[in-house]
Amino acid sequence: MATNKLALLLALSLSLLASVALGRQSQTRLSRAQQCRFNQLTRLQPSRRIESEGGVTDVWDENEDQFQCAGVAPLRNILQPNSLSLPNFHPAPRLVYIERGQGLLGVHFPGCAETFQSQQSSSEGGREQEQGRGRSGRDQHQKIRRIRRGDIVALPSGVAHWCFNDGDEELVAVSITDLNNEANQLDQNLRAYYLAGGPQKRGRQGERGPENFQNVLRGFDEELMAEAFNVDREIVRKMQRQDERGLIVKVREGMGMIRPDEREEEEEGEWGRRMNGIEETWCTMRLHHNVDDRREAEVYSREGGRLNVVNRNKLPILRYMDLSAEKGHLFPNALYTPHWSINSHSIVYITRGEGQVQIADHRGQSVMNDRVSQGDMFVVPQFYAATVKAQSNGIEWVSFKTNGSPMRSPVAGYTSVLRAMPLQVISNSYQISPGEAQNLKYNRGRETVMASPRRS
Amino acid sequence: MATNKLALLLALSLSLLASVALGRQSQTRLSRAQQCRFNQLTRLQPSRRIESEGGVTDVWDENEDQFQCAGVAPLRNILQPNSLSLPNFHPAPRLVYIERGQGLLGVHFPGCAETFQSQQSSSEGGREQEQGRGRSGRDQHQKIRRIRRGDIVALPSGVAHWCFNDGDEELVAVSITDLNNEANQLDQNLRAYYLAGGPQKRGRQGERGPENFQNVLRGFDEELMAEAFNVDREIVRKMQRQDERGLIVKVREGMGMIRPDEREEEEEGEWGRRMNGIEETWCTMRLHHNVDDRREAEVYSREGGRLNVVNRNKLPILRYMDLSAEKGHLFPNALYTPHWSINSHSIVYITRGEGQVQIADHRGQSVMNDRVSQGDMFVVPQFYAATVKAQSNGIEWVSFKTNGSPMRSPVAGYTSVLRAMPLQVISNSYQISPGEAQNLKYNRGRETVMASPRRS
Amino acid sequence: MATNKLALLLALSLSLLASVALGRQSQTRLSRAQQCRFNQLTRLQPSRRIESEGGVTDVWDENEDQFQCAGVAPLRNILQPNSLSLPNFHPAPRLVYIERGQGLLGVHFPGCAETFQSQQSSSEGGREQEQGRGRSGRDQHQKIRRIRRGDIVALPSGVAHWCFNDGDEELVAVSITDLNNEANQLDQNLRAYYLAGGPQKRGRQGERGPENFQNVLRGFDEELMAEAFNVDREIVRKMQRQDERGLIVKVREGMGMIRPDEREEEEEGEWGRRMNGIEETWCTMRLHHNVDDRREAEVYSREGGRLNVVNRNKLPILRYMDLSAEKGHLFPNALYTPHWSINSHSIVYITRGEGQVQIADHRGQSVMNDRVSQGDMFVVPQFYAATVKAQSNGIEWVSFKTNGSPMRSPVAGYTSVLRAMPLQVISNSYQISPGEAQNLKYNRGRETVMASPRRS
Repeated sequence: MATNKLALLLALSLSLLASVALGRQSQTRLSRAQQCRFNQLTRLQPSRRIESEGGVTDVWDENEDQFQCAGVAPLRNILQPNSLSLPNFHPAPRLVYIERGQGLLGVHFPGCAETFQSQQSSSEGGREQEQGRGRSGRDQHQKIRRIRRGDIVALPSGVAHWCFNDGDEELVAVSITDLNNEANQLDQNLRAYYLAGGPQKRGRQGERGPENFQNVLRGFDEELMAEAFNVDREIVRKMQRQDERGLIVKVREGMGMIRPDEREEEEEGEWGRRMNGIEETWCTMRLHHNVDDRREAEVYSREGGRLNVVNRNKLPILRYMDLSAEKGHLFPNALYTPHWSINSHSIVYITRGEGQVQIADHRGQSVMNDRVSQGDMFVVPQFYAATVKAQSNGIEWVSFKTNGSPMRSPVAGYTSVLRAMPLQVISNSYQISPGEAQNLKYNRGRETVMASPRRS
Repeated sequence: MATNKLALLLALSLSLLASVALGRQSQTRLSRAQQCRFNQLTRLQPSRRIESEGGVTDVWDENEDQFQCAGVAPLRNILQPNSLSLPNFHPAPRLVYIERGQGLLGVHFPGCAETFQSQQSSSEGGREQEQGRGRSGRDQHQKIRRIRRGDIVALPSGVAHWCFNDGDEELVAVSITDLNNEANQLDQNLRAYYLAGGPQKRGRQGERGPENFQNVLRGFDEELMAEAFNVDREIVRKMQRQDERGLIVKVREGMGMIRPDEREEEEEGEWGRRMNGIEETWCTMRLHHNVDDRREAEVYSREGGRLNVVNRNKLPILRYMDLSAEKGHLFPNALYTPHWSINSHSIVYITRGEGQVQIADHRGQSVMNDRVSQGDMFVVPQFYAATVKAQSNGIEWVSFKTNGSPMRSPVAGYTSVLRAMPLQVISNSYQISPGEAQNLKYNRGRETVMASPRRS
Repeated sequence: MATNKLALLLALSLSLLASVALGRQSQTRLSRAQQCRFNQLTRLQPSRRIESEGGVTDVWDENEDQFQCAGVAPLRNILQPNSLSLPNFHPAPRLVYIERGQGLLGVHFPGCAETFQSQQSSSEGGREQEQGRGRSGRDQHQKIRRIRRGDIVALPSGVAHWCFNDGDEELVAVSITDLNNEANQLDQNLRAYYLAGGPQKRGRQGERGPENFQNVLRGFDEELMAEAFNVDREIVRKMQRQDERGLIVKVREGMGMIRPDEREEEEEGEWGRRMNGIEETWCTMRLHHNVDDRREAEVYSREGGRLNVVNRNKLPILRYMDLSAEKGHLFPNALYTPHWSINSHSIVYITRGEGQVQIADHRGQSVMNDRVSQGDMFVVPQFYAATVKAQSNGIEWVSFKTNGSPMRSPVAGYTSVLRAMPLQVISNSYQISPGEAQNLKYNRGRETVMASPRRS
């Protein structure tokens, strides 16, 4: 009976939630007296590192011109095996790419049901108590998600999450936080609100970083906290104490029992995929989608390369976050032909190989002409024309985009703007002969975006 | 026949209106090189008072850091009995809470029909003239709404409105104007465009206020105004004259006859409630909803307190304004447990009683730890963790929120983030024993948000 | 068979496109620490002229206070007969009014099919080649649109377009680019990205203009371009060479053959009109609508004048661009009565005749009281009250509005705010007698917005 009432209460709170957006009604870019005028774009490495007991956090300088223009703050978290990224939330949506490893992710939506049960590790279990669920041998909590190399993970703003590396290798997660996103009504500075811990050591330049990544619960009165949780002040003192372990901690108490049954989770994912739509509630929303699956490639050319996109159609929560990501793989010596983005900035992170990047602006000037390799990050601003030429080993990258449905306009090849124009417009525009115009328009045949190396 | 044609014309203009949004397609926050960095939040009282013949207007300083961060300008209008707030409009949506009294509200949507008839006070009536409606004994005008203590009233931007206190006590209306709202394409300064009158005296510090609250019609040429209205210049001179009565005037001509039949209005309200949906037009849209109705409480705890919300589901016009309000009542010594707002700022106004407010930021520091009481106002910024502890008489407040569907994430209790986590995550995060983690997670039982006082 | 595969590929890319928005999910105003405080609004002429071989580009100074407040940059392109405006795109949506002449417009959506065939001018045709379409005698390209005097043309941001004047007279196109539009994630500076050419001479004051209107392809390496297009470097050198012809060029190669069959195009337009709706794809979307058609007038008064509106209902792409336009024609000595705009700025361009414009602000002060005539441009800021009095020859204007469904609130006449109020509110507001209030409310009878000259 009591369970029924609880279920009813829960259902009511869910129906309230179902119509709730995490941001305001639409996600939109805010400006910060935004300036996007650069003579030079450069590939960037993280500017500081926050070291923790169980891993490190690499922070790019969000005050760099190109990140300011795009309105994003990039991060890279590296979790050692058996380490836990402490529960925290941030004031803007974050899009993550799992570069290496695997782990368990908990993202907690207020009001959603605790639908997962774990066998408890301690020996106190077994009694069914009046106090409710959880006093029994089983602990109940919200859904836990398995994330793996190649996943794009969407973390909405203001929603607390933790991540546990239960694998054998490092878990590397590269992300951008979309500070300009409409969901963020604070200013454009990167903050993280931790519910535990706090950074261990100060980074090289980092007076900002650590200060902005602290345990928010330390801001409350001990007595009030004890009353809020109805616990002894001793426990509150432990929650609020100076914690030298930082943002990522080594796990001492075993966490094995919370591993979800993989097969079931997969099926739930399938189910989630089928029910995605307007009636989908926050509680069951899918938060990740693999971008490395070859069968889902949007562009594939046997000699050119492959492009995978995770947009708001594949991962519906991106409708609300208005972000998306693209994974590119350019085969040896192939060319990502010149193109511009119609509706987003692109924040590019190189995951493997090497390539030559050229970017041109509206003044007809080259703002970037650089060799890039693994770990480099740079921004291709909206409307700027860009191209990548793979080196002899090919190149792979992930590109975060500030639009839920990014759109690209290629200059050359099958779907290009030149192919769309009448020959006479081309020949008159460039003062070339009809034959030359025809070569310009048709010589790439049916190739588009990812062009095979030229046979010369 | 003529009436039929008019009806047709009206219907046509209505169908045009039906698809019209008052703001741009969506309401969104604008930034103002927005800064939300404070070491201290303080409870604030109005900084100046504009005195008028029939009441006063208390103005909080919108340049205070916390109001700048939230992008709002707070006001409190106090109308004496038999007084009229002169017709005016403002460049951003306004959400009002009727703290005391009752009155009649006219909000005028261009193109909507004059569906209300009043018996005319003068003796000229009785003749049906070619000139059309209104020359008869009956005056026709748009719908008039009855507003009462406890109502949340939504006033869209750019729409003229007036308010008449026909009750026996003062009418007190507290409001915020959402200057950052997307409907406002001007800058972020509070303005009010009056169609009559003008402020009587200057406030204490107020060069800004009065200057920004003036009769816009005084800016036009007398001759042109006479032609526009097709009246004698004498009347125009009266419209434009310096008016010492200010923004709120005593009524000399009787207004009793325009009182709508209360029962009918209620029924219309009922009807409006049933037809709210996509097909709803602006003309029939409900503009107010009572937030003091106990039967509609979202959260109720016998020993803790009560929370009522008026969001875009209860009052659909809030979809377009992207604002909402919450009324809280915390019983003696009860605790509004620590929580943060996921998608809005909260502008809190204390209506009764006393309480201790604590607010913590991302640096783990306390930015507010203050005793607040009736008439105090303060902002809880988005993502900042806050808590209220009622004093011995309990405390009541109204909180305006910069989102049409506000969402709260509690730290402790039944629907909290800790309840959503596995025990192992809690014990590893705080380095506490499984038993302590269990206490932290479950000791508040099924209580949430409004927690009863701890029995100690 | 090969054609079938291509069709399939195309269909796939279209279905991807169908759900794509050109901007982010909603178009919204960005602020630029926006300031809208002026003591004076003045009528403005272009501040500089960019001269090209085939015409001129007149540029208003977008840094003028009133354009900064509205967030727009106005332009006027004048194409001589047989001249081509070179392919280019801009970082924000543009709304164009064709003031004179006619022409052909190509707007190229990436991924859309090349559905138009032209007979080729050169003699190389006739062979069907493996290389695919286009090597045959027929050239295939995307849809070409006929634009004419009186058309409002919508050009989305980031989409390349060209225009060819195939008529006998100059083609004059006046436009505003909505830099504050949410589709623009760069800063608020006017840029144009050309795919060919570049400005010929520097304007009078113009270091900014020409620098911001350049051939973007010149920013790429010659070798890389040759590979991207798979052509000789000789052709690339021609594409990138310094071009003295500017932004608009004389056509040497004949363009006659690409003229679409007018009757068919009209029918397609009809078809497009019928199928406009949610399922409409970008590829078939209508981009223009005539605003001079008397049968479509929204307001018509035999002695007053006429108002035509092109909003998001008439031209659905304006939903995504959140812009609209109004064409006004005021008959001799008639009056556009005082009114304010509820949800947009208006950027007014006078196309014929003369009139007296008065604009008043919230301080009750006149910020404009000027005689305006053909070629003048000025902004009526949102919420500011404005009125126009035609001179003896009447006056015509086009007004661009920063909202897809603009809404006006008149002060006097049939649909006005005074008509919506009870007489008692009017008489008490202005301290006038009930009879005077009745005159004020009803003397304009059924006239609204466009008032006939007063018989005095």
